[in-house]
Amino acid sequence: MTSPLAQGSTIGILGGGQLGRMLSMAAARLGLKTHIYEQSAQCPAADVAHRVTSAAYDDEAALRAFGRDVDVITYEFENIPTYALDILQDLAPIRPARNALAVSQDRLTEKQFLTDLGLRCAPYHAVGTFDDLLQAIDKVGLPAILKTTRMGYDGKGQMRIANIQDAQEAYDAMQGSMAVFEGFIDFSHEVSVIAARGADGAISAYDPGENLHKNGILHQTTVPARLSANQRTDAVLLAAKILNALEYVGVMGVELFVTPAGFIVNEIAPRVHNSGHWTQNGCATDQFEQHIRAVAGWPLGDGQRYADVVMENLIGNDMDKVPQLTSQPNTALHLYGKPEARAGRKMGHVNVMTTPKA
Amino acid sequence: MTSPLAQGSTIGILGGGQLGRMLSMAAARLGLKTHIYEQSAQCPAADVAHRVTSAAYDDEAALRAFGRDVDVITYEFENIPTYALDILQDLAPIRPARNALAVSQDRLTEKQFLTDLGLRCAPYHAVGTFDDLLQAIDKVGLPAILKTTRMGYDGKGQMRIANIQDAQEAYDAMQGSMAVFEGFIDFSHEVSVIAARGADGAISAYDPGENLHKNGILHQTTVPARLSANQRTDAVLLAAKILNALEYVGVMGVELFVTPAGFIVNEIAPRVHNSGHWTQNGCATDQFEQHIRAVAGWPLGDGQRYADVVMENLIGNDMDKVPQLTSQPNTALHLYGKPEARAGRKMGHVNVMTTPKA
Repeated sequence: MTSPLAQGSTIGILGGGQLGRMLSMAAARLGLKTHIYEQSAQCPAADVAHRVTSAAYDDEAALRAFGRDVDVITYEFENIPTYALDILQDLAPIRPARNALAVSQDRLTEKQFLTDLGLRCAPYHAVGTFDDLLQAIDKVGLPAILKTTRMGYDGKGQMRIANIQDAQEAYDAMQGSMAVFEGFIDFSHEVSVIAARGADGAISAYDPGENLHKNGILHQTTVPARLSANQRTDAVLLAAKILNALEYVGVMGVELFVTPAGFIVNEIAPRVHNSGHWTQNGCATDQFEQHIRAVAGWPLGDGQRYADVVMENLIGNDMDKVPQLTSQPNTALHLYGKPEARAGRKMGHVNVMTTPKA
Repeated sequence: MTSPLAQGSTIGILGGGQLGRMLSMAAARLGLKTHIYEQSAQCPAADVAHRVTSAAYDDEAALRAFGRDVDVITYEFENIPTYALDILQDLAPIRPARNALAVSQDRLTEKQFLTDLGLRCAPYHAVGTFDDLLQAIDKVGLPAILKTTRMGYDGKGQMRIANIQDAQEAYDAMQGSMAVFEGFIDFSHEVSVIAARGADGAISAYDPGENLHKNGILHQTTVPARLSANQRTDAVLLAAKILNALEYVGVMGVELFVTPAGFIVNEIAPRVHNSGHWTQNGCATDQFEQHIRAVAGWPLGDGQRYADVVMENLIGNDMDKVPQLTSQPNTALHLYGKPEARAGRKMGHVNVMTTPKA
């Protein structure tokens, strides 16, 4: 695939959650169709996609039919089984490419990759056995967090270790999975850079947003973040370094801890990112459209910020706030149409433009 | 239907063109599904709708199945056959209600309605016979335009009469349809007010946009329009008068000619309107979401304008400009995914924010 996708072409998206839903809407704005591949019978993206395949990631026939129907394949989550990728890669280009998945699917590989690039991560140590864990505590210190190397998100697959007595419980909680022991670092706040690289190698980064978490889940992102002009530039250059090293095509989220000694990379996500949702009401081209443009081989759009925005997630019974939010000024609601507001479930988000006036 | 539609409810939309497509996307942002009813086998809205019925407007079984599947019915065009409305009205609420369609489906009824409200229209005369036409010429004068009372849009079903020799040709072009003879008026420019009325009777009007037509089709809308503060207020009050008189629920487009003696109403459209597309990149709540909020019984959203915007339609081979537009700053593309760029066909539009910086 070398030329830009034409009107009416189809982008295959692995995963049909809210990110797939918003990617589908962005594709539609550009005159492109989407075909969602999703395990669950019902999913948020199905409402707005041209086509949906409901099948498991080990269903070869479904994967082949999907791969043949689409012009390019992208994804809304990083934990795509290798089996599926092996089949799909011969049927349509996968963007971002598999190297980005390989790096981000495994916390250890990711940290090694970032360190090799000359970037800083929190001190860490690989943990396979209980002895490794004791060594890690000795080397990195306490308190710290033990995380499975694979499949964790939104605080799942993580255990905090405050003192040596917690070690056994934390180790047992990993259930034999390979894990990484991460030291705490002294940071003032967390920001994230949402950056895109086009098929032509062009890079466009959004103004960094400042993140606030609650119970291990992103609660709020504010732009502008508390950063100096120099820090802003550093953050963007750092993201560009990662994108270029991977010859990445698409949007990536890069979470950074701000410390007096510079940025420490928390993690990278090879996809559109919750902390980039503010771009829907702050930029001519939002992160979803930017990702679609990149994977479709189109030029990147204008990601200049034109408003100050506070994005807040609506999680579980935060949905009770919706009636009040519907009539609040400068406020844009983005709901995912999920039927049941379970605790911890991302149901939607709201963007409040704090300086929107022309 | 008295309470606001819940998450996951379904809005039925009659018509699956670009307006239905953008209404579907707006509904999705609010967590609502759409079911499109459309005669053509393929339509722009199908890509982003939860469900599509492809059937004619005289297919009773299809209409009944559609009506039973949805929680409320709205439409993207005014020329809905009475037969279909008769069936649908018993199955789900129709919003805006049928009185708005009755008024806007017939140019004569519309002019009578507006005149009765104390608003000004261009001088007109009903034409059923050739004698009526000669009388109209005598009473209203020339040049003038002869229009069928029903089914005309984008310059179709219209004939300009410059002098008496054109009369017979113009009359024959109406092919026996009832027509209205409209005198020319001396106006400086045309503006349109996109206004919404909620189910609770609340009214919200967008800042008027200034329209420029080419070959009888809208080419460009610019906000702000060239209007004084007083004119702005007058335009909004005028629109509110129309909405209240009809006890209207939804978004309406009101086209006004600006003259030294005040506004002359050109026409009203009981639906989202091409001249309101700029709201997608100038307001927290765009006209599509405002319409969905109204018909879903939600409170109206914030329609305050936060940027100056120029909206330009992409018609037929204007699509050749897309590659260049994709990398133009402050520019948001909205393409409809139509496979073939036929002459005169609306393929998309572009919103250029001319003062977008925070």
